[in-house]
Amino acid sequence: MTGPCSPSGAIPAGRQVLGVGIDVVAVERFSAALLRTPDLLGRLFAPTERLTPSGRSRSAASLAARFAAKESVAKALGVPSGLQWHDCAVRSTAGGRPELLITGTVAEAAAAQGISSWRLSLSHDAGIAAAVVLAIG
Amino acid sequence: MTGPCSPSGAIPAGRQVLGVGIDVVAVERFSAALLRTPDLLGRLFAPTERLTPSGRSRSAASLAARFAAKESVAKALGVPSGLQWHDCAVRSTAGGRPELLITGTVAEAAAAQGISSWRLSLSHDAGIAAAVVLAIG
Amino acid sequence: MTGPCSPSGAIPAGRQVLGVGIDVVAVERFSAALLRTPDLLGRLFAPTERLTPSGRSRSAASLAARFAAKESVAKALGVPSGLQWHDCAVRSTAGGRPELLITGTVAEAAAAQGISSWRLSLSHDAGIAAAVVLAIG
Repeated sequence: MTGPCSPSGAIPAGRQVLGVGIDVVAVERFSAALLRTPDLLGRLFAPTERLTPSGRSRSAASLAARFAAKESVAKALGVPSGLQWHDCAVRSTAGGRPELLITGTVAEAAAAQGISSWRLSLSHDAGIAAAVVLAIG
Repeated sequence: MTGPCSPSGAIPAGRQVLGVGIDVVAVERFSAALLRTPDLLGRLFAPTERLTPSGRSRSAASLAARFAAKESVAKALGVPSGLQWHDCAVRSTAGGRPELLITGTVAEAAAAQGISSWRLSLSHDAGIAAAVVLAIG
Repeated sequence: MTGPCSPSGAIPAGRQVLGVGIDVVAVERFSAALLRTPDLLGRLFAPTERLTPSGRSRSAASLAARFAAKESVAKALGVPSGLQWHDCAVRSTAGGRPELLITGTVAEAAAAQGISSWRLSLSHDAGIAAAVVLAIG
């Protein structure tokens, strides 16, 4: 530092895009996997993730989009080993905007890469669910 | 400000990614909706948006991709109420690159969130149209 | 410049998102094109791109995702003329993370736009392959 700010240190943390992740999920295939493997739903999603803000069970398409979000986060992190599905959850803000709740193993992997925040968007139509995430650091 | 630049103000506006939006649209379903609801086309797209640069009517896939762009922008903004479809248009630059033309209700929502520019990409193949947008502020 | 850093020059190169690209490819249609046009595979992919890190031939879905990556890069650059497919390759890092190897015509187009690095993510499921790239400058 040579003054109130230095050229190399001019950007506060949390401003650069460090990674991107995209995931596309076939809703029917995802539903079939949930039916075939009864404990998969619980392994992938925390109880609160399986419900809408109004307390109803999420549709298969909505769950598939949330699974795509988890996969996208894993990809943005480079798919390190040891990530737990419950440590990356999607929650809806009061306005209905989905956002990521990163904890435990996923938070550790993110911190190790200098990632301090995330941006998320979800979509589903015609049997395809998709998610894109940005890792900001 | 303590000098020519301050650590907290070192980044000029327009440099951070504030939001991301993705949308996937089934072209056949979108086409069916346009046929079923005759005034939907005009509600969604301004006359200039419905034509290619050479003046021909856009294909259903091209319109579906543009609809996905509008939905992606709404998602990146958190789907605030009051957005008008015509206030978010896709135009092609001279080089053929699609870009967003944000006006009125959408420009107001963007300004309120500190968003000053957008990045857009569109794709369609095999009955699926998709868009991704970044909101930069 | 009025001091150790200037407000307009406070951000080092390589920190802004200059472009985004998305591409969706129908795997079956892509496979059919490869079968129909025997020299297409070689035109699109360098020999090393066609093999997995363990030396096996890539699946059609994996090749389609890599083709989507090339298309996404072209879109992020504004689809300038003269780009060569081999000048934008996807390679897998030791950890299995895909990254772009940009050379020749694509590197020149990127440099002309101030792009210094890229972020990439790939996905495929149920016959759809997708890629998203960010151009950072």
